[in-house]
Amino acid sequence: MTTATTTATTPARTTDVTGFPATGSPVVLDRAELHAAVGDPVLTSMNFLNEVMGRFPGAISFAPGAPHDSFLADVDAGRHIATYLDHLRRTAGLPEGEPERRLYRYGAAAGQINALVARQLRLDEGIMAAPEAVVVTVGCQEAMFITLRALHAGPDDVLIVPEPCYVGVMGAAKLLGITVRTVDQSEGTLDLDRLAALCAEIRAGGGRPRSFYLVPDFANPSGARMDLPARKALLALAEEQDLLLLEDNPYGFTAAPGSELPTLKLLDRSARVVYLGTYAKVCMPGARVGFVVADQQVRDADGGTRLLADELTAIKSMVTVNTSPISQAVIGGILVENGGSLREPAARKAAFYQHNLAVLRRALERHFPRSLRRRAGIDWHAPDGGFFLMMDVPFDADEDLLEVSAREFGVLWTPMRHFFAGPGGTHRLRLSSSYLDPTQIEEGTTRLAAFIQSRL
Amino acid sequence: MTTATTTATTPARTTDVTGFPATGSPVVLDRAELHAAVGDPVLTSMNFLNEVMGRFPGAISFAPGAPHDSFLADVDAGRHIATYLDHLRRTAGLPEGEPERRLYRYGAAAGQINALVARQLRLDEGIMAAPEAVVVTVGCQEAMFITLRALHAGPDDVLIVPEPCYVGVMGAAKLLGITVRTVDQSEGTLDLDRLAALCAEIRAGGGRPRSFYLVPDFANPSGARMDLPARKALLALAEEQDLLLLEDNPYGFTAAPGSELPTLKLLDRSARVVYLGTYAKVCMPGARVGFVVADQQVRDADGGTRLLADELTAIKSMVTVNTSPISQAVIGGILVENGGSLREPAARKAAFYQHNLAVLRRALERHFPRSLRRRAGIDWHAPDGGFFLMMDVPFDADEDLLEVSAREFGVLWTPMRHFFAGPGGTHRLRLSSSYLDPTQIEEGTTRLAAFIQSRL
Repeated sequence: MTTATTTATTPARTTDVTGFPATGSPVVLDRAELHAAVGDPVLTSMNFLNEVMGRFPGAISFAPGAPHDSFLADVDAGRHIATYLDHLRRTAGLPEGEPERRLYRYGAAAGQINALVARQLRLDEGIMAAPEAVVVTVGCQEAMFITLRALHAGPDDVLIVPEPCYVGVMGAAKLLGITVRTVDQSEGTLDLDRLAALCAEIRAGGGRPRSFYLVPDFANPSGARMDLPARKALLALAEEQDLLLLEDNPYGFTAAPGSELPTLKLLDRSARVVYLGTYAKVCMPGARVGFVVADQQVRDADGGTRLLADELTAIKSMVTVNTSPISQAVIGGILVENGGSLREPAARKAAFYQHNLAVLRRALERHFPRSLRRRAGIDWHAPDGGFFLMMDVPFDADEDLLEVSAREFGVLWTPMRHFFAGPGGTHRLRLSSSYLDPTQIEEGTTRLAAFIQSRL
Repeated sequence: MTTATTTATTPARTTDVTGFPATGSPVVLDRAELHAAVGDPVLTSMNFLNEVMGRFPGAISFAPGAPHDSFLADVDAGRHIATYLDHLRRTAGLPEGEPERRLYRYGAAAGQINALVARQLRLDEGIMAAPEAVVVTVGCQEAMFITLRALHAGPDDVLIVPEPCYVGVMGAAKLLGITVRTVDQSEGTLDLDRLAALCAEIRAGGGRPRSFYLVPDFANPSGARMDLPARKALLALAEEQDLLLLEDNPYGFTAAPGSELPTLKLLDRSARVVYLGTYAKVCMPGARVGFVVADQQVRDADGGTRLLADELTAIKSMVTVNTSPISQAVIGGILVENGGSLREPAARKAAFYQHNLAVLRRALERHFPRSLRRRAGIDWHAPDGGFFLMMDVPFDADEDLLEVSAREFGVLWTPMRHFFAGPGGTHRLRLSSSYLDPTQIEEGTTRLAAFIQSRL
């Protein structure tokens, strides 16, 4: 709970809410009889981290992969909404009061700011998406969720993910009962031969390799980035294997100037890529606005075709009805204020995140000289961008040790096992550098070094 | 698309979005290979109605079950956000800038305004829910969605719904692969003996009657309302059958003064009721803020217990991460401005909807005198509140006829078959009186009468 009221609250764990004496005996549900996703480590790991952070507020946390708070000072929801309303007045020729009503009514399930999103993609990424191919979603998570639902008809349709993998996609797959197979990316490189072999194996078992989810730029948690030849090879493989690629791109904007790479979506010549986007990192998380570009054709039994985006819209209407037009107006206003492109704020923020990552790398190098690293089996995979870095340690970095680290050393990190579908990730942790100040990174690394030293 | 920009848009049905000459051949997906929910009538019916409304903008539409536009003049998102920020400043003792940052960051998955929601439930409904038992959701649809996901472990766990039934719950069940059985409510009354017999039948077939979704007050589309003895009998039946009740209450506020009935949740003595709520009707739809009260205990294998709300929160985090704190601030601000209770605005709006319903009934009575009704087989089920009325007609009121009605008579309605899981609802239509002005209702009924006369 982050709000407070002046009223007394009832006890936290009440089973009878009638306010009258309970006469029946309250039902107690058996967790084993709930859906299998309930209690699954994938769903509980995030909660565990939040809970530990809550219990050790003085600890420096390398856990949250959130944008830095200082950028929130740029945000003024009221002003952005006013800007968007003004944009509607100027461009849509609406009668008095109608722009406001468009924010307060239910809106179109596909979204209201689709043309602005399409324009931003064109200006910033070179992606030429028709507004009709865009579905505006409640963050990128819902984009992923509805896309997985549409594409996976049953348990034979297999979703492939790199391992380690962002928990959001694994959690969505659990809720939807989607079969997941993994391809190892623990050393940062995606082995396309292994991916091809996995596809063959899935087919041999009677399944269909349906989609491959990935973050080509500075993945969470691995920080891995695919180079241009690998991107082209992956697209060719997708074609060969009749696989759809779900490209999630929250961190591409953090690339160092001049080192940007084209998205898979831009390189795609055969509509193999469904593009998942978010405004959480460059604009702000609190609007909960993301989107999916799904320009694939879908043919039905009588030969008619629609866009995949239309099918996703129908699915979305049964998950959240539509994305809040007020939230969309906040993001729409930011887009309008920036002339339609987010290049300027993205570049400014990228410089900050690049610097933070450099500070973390230098601090690690200082605390763990090469000789110690070699001797103790310590190493890290430092990417050229993004929010995350993977660190190898010579002990099992589990949740119990995280407690010790928080309590005795005042530093938090994420156990890498959270990002593994099966066993794995035991001797590794994820460090996020996005949410901390450089001075906190310095101090946090000092504390982390003390913690790690204590385990050697 | 409801927005416009000054940029040229690419053609609506593009398959190659790279902006470069296409060299690969674009994939065409086969709808039959997508998830079974795609193309299901339940998901496409809403789209069909929107599409027809778009093509006949001059038609008077009895289709939308949305709140009346005039109430949107009360809404001022910027002011409500400011009110909520002020509330946070006064009550939470936060440092400068922190209230704003709480709106712009990711927020707690369970919600931020839970204490305000719990207070409103206590003041307006007498429901004593702990804030911890409340999960704030992206509209009531997401509340329903995550609740169904948690409670239904597999195909043997059957969801029972009255028929006709709100499409949102049938659509959510389709997406989640949940088995649905129906109990007839086409004449307005819920036959509890039939419900008990259905539970027995499900058990005999090896299934488990897990949950029963219903709108006890002025249901969509039937307008039906359960009286107090029926509510008590249903609670007893739920106990007997080990059934959970999913009580959805969007229309209870429209009851005539003095005729309010206690919710199932208020009458519940054994935590059998999961309460689904929305701020769409009394505040505004555009914030997309709803909630679920899930104060049931869940016991896990080692005997520990948590609230069902905690499990729903974990599920929600994999669907939409969290509900936009900006949207929550809009609703939170409205709650604070109204002293925590929504009784005053709810009563004011109820009077408007009561009046509209009376206007519709009188107009129907004028156009269809008793003798004609009897002779032609025309009748209607007029409820004492809510947004909807069911009308029987002596012909199959299908989508083709709706087109005729729109084109030739300038009036729209909803085919009742949209609310049936199987066949049924053929000779009936739903009229919504919430979205129209009294003069539009008069004129619309005149047009409707002309249309119906033309089919006799």
